[in-house]
Amino acid sequence: MSALAGKTAENLSKIRKTKPLIHNITNFVVMNFTANALLACGASPVMAHADNEVEEMVEHAGALVLNIGTLSDAWVSSMIKAGRKASELGKPIILDPVGAGATNLRTNAAKAILAQTWVSVIRGNASEILSLAGQHSAAKGVDAADSLADAALAAGALARELGTTLAITGEVDLVTDGRRTLTIEGGHALMPYVTGTGCAATALVGAFHAVDKDPVSAAATALAFLGVAGETAGAKSSGPGSFMIHLLDALYSLSPDEAEARSRIRQS
Amino acid sequence: MSALAGKTAENLSKIRKTKPLIHNITNFVVMNFTANALLACGASPVMAHADNEVEEMVEHAGALVLNIGTLSDAWVSSMIKAGRKASELGKPIILDPVGAGATNLRTNAAKAILAQTWVSVIRGNASEILSLAGQHSAAKGVDAADSLADAALAAGALARELGTTLAITGEVDLVTDGRRTLTIEGGHALMPYVTGTGCAATALVGAFHAVDKDPVSAAATALAFLGVAGETAGAKSSGPGSFMIHLLDALYSLSPDEAEARSRIRQS
Amino acid sequence: MSALAGKTAENLSKIRKTKPLIHNITNFVVMNFTANALLACGASPVMAHADNEVEEMVEHAGALVLNIGTLSDAWVSSMIKAGRKASELGKPIILDPVGAGATNLRTNAAKAILAQTWVSVIRGNASEILSLAGQHSAAKGVDAADSLADAALAAGALARELGTTLAITGEVDLVTDGRRTLTIEGGHALMPYVTGTGCAATALVGAFHAVDKDPVSAAATALAFLGVAGETAGAKSSGPGSFMIHLLDALYSLSPDEAEARSRIRQS
Repeated sequence: MSALAGKTAENLSKIRKTKPLIHNITNFVVMNFTANALLACGASPVMAHADNEVEEMVEHAGALVLNIGTLSDAWVSSMIKAGRKASELGKPIILDPVGAGATNLRTNAAKAILAQTWVSVIRGNASEILSLAGQHSAAKGVDAADSLADAALAAGALARELGTTLAITGEVDLVTDGRRTLTIEGGHALMPYVTGTGCAATALVGAFHAVDKDPVSAAATALAFLGVAGETAGAKSSGPGSFMIHLLDALYSLSPDEAEARSRIRQS
Repeated sequence: MSALAGKTAENLSKIRKTKPLIHNITNFVVMNFTANALLACGASPVMAHADNEVEEMVEHAGALVLNIGTLSDAWVSSMIKAGRKASELGKPIILDPVGAGATNLRTNAAKAILAQTWVSVIRGNASEILSLAGQHSAAKGVDAADSLADAALAAGALARELGTTLAITGEVDLVTDGRRTLTIEGGHALMPYVTGTGCAATALVGAFHAVDKDPVSAAATALAFLGVAGETAGAKSSGPGSFMIHLLDALYSLSPDEAEARSRIRQS
Repeated sequence: MSALAGKTAENLSKIRKTKPLIHNITNFVVMNFTANALLACGASPVMAHADNEVEEMVEHAGALVLNIGTLSDAWVSSMIKAGRKASELGKPIILDPVGAGATNLRTNAAKAILAQTWVSVIRGNASEILSLAGQHSAAKGVDAADSLADAALAAGALARELGTTLAITGEVDLVTDGRRTLTIEGGHALMPYVTGTGCAATALVGAFHAVDKDPVSAAATALAFLGVAGETAGAKSSGPGSFMIHLLDALYSLSPDEAEARSRIRQS
């Protein structure tokens, strides 16, 4: 049985009933796939990035997703503006630090968003999230730990340092707010061959967070649901093209009960 | 038998023979899907938004499609510049007021385009199109009418007020220039779960209008064709991912005769 | 047997082993499909266009792909900045002059990139590439030659004039550096009905060039591989939607040996 028993089904049902509006300021590469993933699971995506529109748009939204791929200075400003408004309104912000660590623009943008807005969850891979930590952080083991237990300890320390919930995806996903740490299994080997599956994970965390105020359970159930959908899709696919299509079908077709029954969320 | 008898087949045949160039200034989310939908039905899409390119590009085009999703001020300027040139050259302009009513930027952009260019057809849902009307418009019943007949009356009034042809899509689509009003049935329940199906409808109106000078028959036959393709796709799909793919296949595969035979365009 | 015997298999194997990072500054329409094509064949795509990021990003890359669809002045500047850095570092640059000849912005941008950076391969169709030649170029026959042999002669002259390798795609592809000229057969009639297949060809040339310093053999093997994948996909498809998906599956699934065995590269 899954930790957070019943929560995956409950959150998915709420999304399908209430169709929360998810405001995305995200990268050009994944906009289409992200919108389709949100629609498939039952949420209502909107993409809006203009400086003179984002504050008004975020007022309508249940969550704000900020994704720093294909960045430019104007987009960083809009993200911070939207993020400040969301912080003021108490709406959850989910940050995807795509490529943080690869260039200064990206690392600095992610740090500026963290400093100037109230980010509820960061969803990224270990190296992206590590690049946001202080230079001598004890948390560095998060990407090179000898065991999952060591990685979980390091992730918890990092969450405390950054003051937010982390959703670190990889072979096994880790969600931690520094006190509670959960592991999530699932997914499929084809996932890294489809662009935007990580970004879609972030957007789904947004949808789940729009209906579940607890960042840890929102992130963990979103990743568990995506993992189940990935398994369903992978079983039918003959490559990354068909995987992408079957994944959207699965996000739409999986019932809350089946998603719950197959969720593999564990206490770490 | 369909109203506009023979016209769906005729327009589709012309598109496949003449491959009209459709110039799109559209949103980032749907650019790929819109281009693929246009290619599939036989047209030639081009996307170009730069201030110093749009006038030259529109000279080559058979129609100009303006879509205000993921807007910014620079894009609004380019849309108006392209639209003025198209107006001057007598090329049909099709406006998709995505999200008009949701933010001032979008509502004002759509109104500015309407005021400064000669828009031939507006394609949107009822609430988007209503947001473009005057505040005390009698046409407000278009989104909340008790019957299709009442909605058609309200739509006709709105078309006269805005001085353009309206293509209002929903469970049943309405096309009206304020004098003639047609209803179009078709489509599939999965359509709202794929991002860009509305935007693709707008682009198809562009392709049909490039070969048919009458905005009412161009819009109605485009929507009828998309509706038939949606039915074909829906019958084969197990979710929105596969629907999207089968829809592109159907737009490509449907013969003019089959599209005509299955079109459900009626006088209102 | 293919000319460049063994080279298609060798290059594809190297890509799958080393997963070269391909830095793309490309158009909005095809970003998603291009990224997916690169991932499917085994490479690592990154899209980054910001003025204050491109130099840093290109340092990590094995090749730089510049594609001028959906252009604006700011993007041209970033392309040239990235291209200069790549030139300085000796990294191969592949240029896709999408729509060159259609507008001055595009023609001039392509010429500026050629003048200010060291472009290793231009991949385009005949008319796009011809628009980059001098006005009285003897090479004009490249798009209207009476025979493939005449087209090859004209292409060779054009490559010498432009001082770069040309990969001219069409019914039969031509790759020439002005000394060696190869023809490549393959592909499928549905390819022109999917947006971004040409752009994906350019990106694949980037991936192959990242592992093969010879521009002629890199371009020819990339096009041969895409041609084989297109044939595999076409045999399973019922339209452009399913073709697109099967193409990604084929780029992922084809083994180096099968790709080699089915490559049709010939000396011209």
